[in-house]
Amino acid sequence: MFPDLPEATVARLPEYLRALHGLAQDGHDTVSSEGLATAAGVNSAKLRKDLSHLGSYGTRGVGYDVALLITQIEAVLGLTKHRKVALVGIGNLGHALAGYGGFASRGFSVAALFDAERSQIGERIGTLVVRHIDELAEVVAAEGISIGVIATPARAAQQVADQLVGAGVTSILNFAPCVLNVPSGVDVRKVDLAVEMQILSFHEHRKALTALPAPEQPAGEATGS
Amino acid sequence: MFPDLPEATVARLPEYLRALHGLAQDGHDTVSSEGLATAAGVNSAKLRKDLSHLGSYGTRGVGYDVALLITQIEAVLGLTKHRKVALVGIGNLGHALAGYGGFASRGFSVAALFDAERSQIGERIGTLVVRHIDELAEVVAAEGISIGVIATPARAAQQVADQLVGAGVTSILNFAPCVLNVPSGVDVRKVDLAVEMQILSFHEHRKALTALPAPEQPAGEATGS
Repeated sequence: MFPDLPEATVARLPEYLRALHGLAQDGHDTVSSEGLATAAGVNSAKLRKDLSHLGSYGTRGVGYDVALLITQIEAVLGLTKHRKVALVGIGNLGHALAGYGGFASRGFSVAALFDAERSQIGERIGTLVVRHIDELAEVVAAEGISIGVIATPARAAQQVADQLVGAGVTSILNFAPCVLNVPSGVDVRKVDLAVEMQILSFHEHRKALTALPAPEQPAGEATGS
Repeated sequence: MFPDLPEATVARLPEYLRALHGLAQDGHDTVSSEGLATAAGVNSAKLRKDLSHLGSYGTRGVGYDVALLITQIEAVLGLTKHRKVALVGIGNLGHALAGYGGFASRGFSVAALFDAERSQIGERIGTLVVRHIDELAEVVAAEGISIGVIATPARAAQQVADQLVGAGVTSILNFAPCVLNVPSGVDVRKVDLAVEMQILSFHEHRKALTALPAPEQPAGEATGS
């Protein structure tokens, strides 16, 4: 089912889904590709191409059926199945992730918390208690956990990844600033906050350079809409 | 200077930079494109293409000069200039970001913390004290802050973005799960943790579907390396 969906399209589907949920809440039954594109923050040609991969072309003059498109995207993303998450590394970031409401509202639940530091073990966060990483395999099996989130320092991340994979986890979200080696069949997504900052730095730098000689657009010379 | 660098290339440069710093620390003066590609977690053809955009082609049989390539990438990313960051929204995630060591080590410093909740104002985090959002414009000007990080709930994010832009901030890293409207000339990068989870869900879902009928690869049938 959609095995050849481009990775960039997959990455945009959650944005479309959020926009569609917003439209549904506001009482919209249908939406034009332009309206949905604006709400999702992409251009409408890209959106139409993305949705055509799902077999959704909308209806000329009417647009897309909001409820139907939500159902289609949720099916493609596998969101009809509730997924359990193990969170490893309960420092500042781990605490933030453990308390992050956005997971639960979108079909994911943090089912277990782990750390290697004795001082952290036994801490209660919400309804969960932090366990020692040595209990990982047992808890992953008992809870049916399929996704691991690594919020440890970089030096610990590879070992934690090995333990997660050994325990049967097949998807990892990695916040540690390092590349993980995992067997094929295991998917890793990386979130590196400093990388995001460096990308912004590039744009700051470019703006500073291009701002020097570029004349202002003459006022009153309207561009076509 | 490199105004037409593809956005995907820009996004990979920080990964190359991290890998290069690791190689330098380990005493390497040169690195092959294959070696650097492995360390950065990309394929080597993509890496060579990316670096050719910077005018770096390496030397046949020798590879890339590690120190030179670090200097080139840092120049392109504008990392030679120290950049100050304002962090708005001091909940769980804001606390994690305020304490995130990865910013300082890569040329960014969190120079000011803001919240709108009276109960948060005055809290000390490290060397900083949380200020009221009403002081934003004054502090941004006084500190020369160019980057804003939004870690507020979604409902507050657009107003905060407007305040940041009004104060003169030209780059925003947005952790709130919503699309921001900003004037042209302001760059926004979005980090949405639930989106990352949904992308992993897609891969979990696909693996579950394809796992059903697919036979195991016969043991002993080696694939060419």
